[in-house]
Amino acid sequence: MSTRTIPVVENILGANDRIAQANQGIFDSTRTFAVNFMASPGAGKTSVILRTVQALQGRYRMAGVDGDVATTIDADRMASNGIPAVQINTGGTCHLDAVMLSGALPKLNLDEVDLLIIENVGNLICPASFKLGSHLDVLIASVPEGDDKPYKYPKMYRGVKAVLLNKIDLLPYFDFDMDYFRKGVEVLNPGLAFFPVSAKTGKGLDDYIRWLTEQVDLYLAL
Amino acid sequence: MSTRTIPVVENILGANDRIAQANQGIFDSTRTFAVNFMASPGAGKTSVILRTVQALQGRYRMAGVDGDVATTIDADRMASNGIPAVQINTGGTCHLDAVMLSGALPKLNLDEVDLLIIENVGNLICPASFKLGSHLDVLIASVPEGDDKPYKYPKMYRGVKAVLLNKIDLLPYFDFDMDYFRKGVEVLNPGLAFFPVSAKTGKGLDDYIRWLTEQVDLYLAL
Repeated sequence: MSTRTIPVVENILGANDRIAQANQGIFDSTRTFAVNFMASPGAGKTSVILRTVQALQGRYRMAGVDGDVATTIDADRMASNGIPAVQINTGGTCHLDAVMLSGALPKLNLDEVDLLIIENVGNLICPASFKLGSHLDVLIASVPEGDDKPYKYPKMYRGVKAVLLNKIDLLPYFDFDMDYFRKGVEVLNPGLAFFPVSAKTGKGLDDYIRWLTEQVDLYLAL
Repeated sequence: MSTRTIPVVENILGANDRIAQANQGIFDSTRTFAVNFMASPGAGKTSVILRTVQALQGRYRMAGVDGDVATTIDADRMASNGIPAVQINTGGTCHLDAVMLSGALPKLNLDEVDLLIIENVGNLICPASFKLGSHLDVLIASVPEGDDKPYKYPKMYRGVKAVLLNKIDLLPYFDFDMDYFRKGVEVLNPGLAFFPVSAKTGKGLDDYIRWLTEQVDLYLAL
């Protein structure tokens, strides 16, 4: 067995990318726009997703894939909103990868899904390294995490198409320097779509939903 | 190259455990008590550690090792409190491991350190799989993360000797069910030391510091 680990990692990532590409091929064959939401544990992925589902109900046919180390709490929440949802329990693995997603897709009737919402495992590091085949990768940051997170987790901030800063209703209770945070995001990912929101109060969600709708409509019009 | 990945992972973890044991041997030869703090990004590792350092200044000779994906923000904060600190930039890796720690130890004069404080990478999953050789592993949870985290990240909660629940000053602004959280912790790790604290206001820190002091004193008296 080889003691050099780097080539093995490269091989795994290469294989992952090929399967991610195959996943996107499946999505495109059924005209399904796939969005991958990533975040730290407790940033509010599920709350933002439920708000998204509620706002877009009637407009798109939706389904969900929920990645978690354990439990089906998140998929249950999605299902209780009338959305077909598949749970992937990673069994300790710190991210979703393209193979896991590929295994979940046959459980959904993608022909009848316009918008597939993927909730990644709560983690600011590992998911950034594994493409899934999604058309859009979105990071949900949150005020309680602190304003220094773009600086400390650059790969995640660099790889996404949009950042939602959740829990802005809590800004009065935190020493959160918005300029410092924005500057970090801007250096890593210039011109990135940025939405300060509160999934709790609903503040700021309209702008985000409008932007997301534009992305989905553009795709479906292709 | 083998296509079976499980044996490789087992080998890596086996090697890690051996080096962790060697690290503990080094600590024991210099009578240095090593504490490994783990947490999700933004739970308040650095704030709790700085409170710890301030409370124990004069009582123990201390040093720090800070793990981060990028930046030296945390080590700088520790150093500004007069504590020798070494930063380990993992370069994208999602945890500290025993080899990384082993490489940092020669940079500290452990003969003159009673208490070594290790700040792991912000991540609720991966650090739980890699022993470092520390005498005590502590998890810092936080109110904004939500009360369901023990259920969703069981391995981390199962592997530690104590849980600090930080940011309790924010309880009025969150729907955080303390009984549900405690029940999750208790099922995974019965009888675990549990300290609700606020690194911001200082509330609850006395009990935690008393407990930590007991652990250090017991070790130094051996």
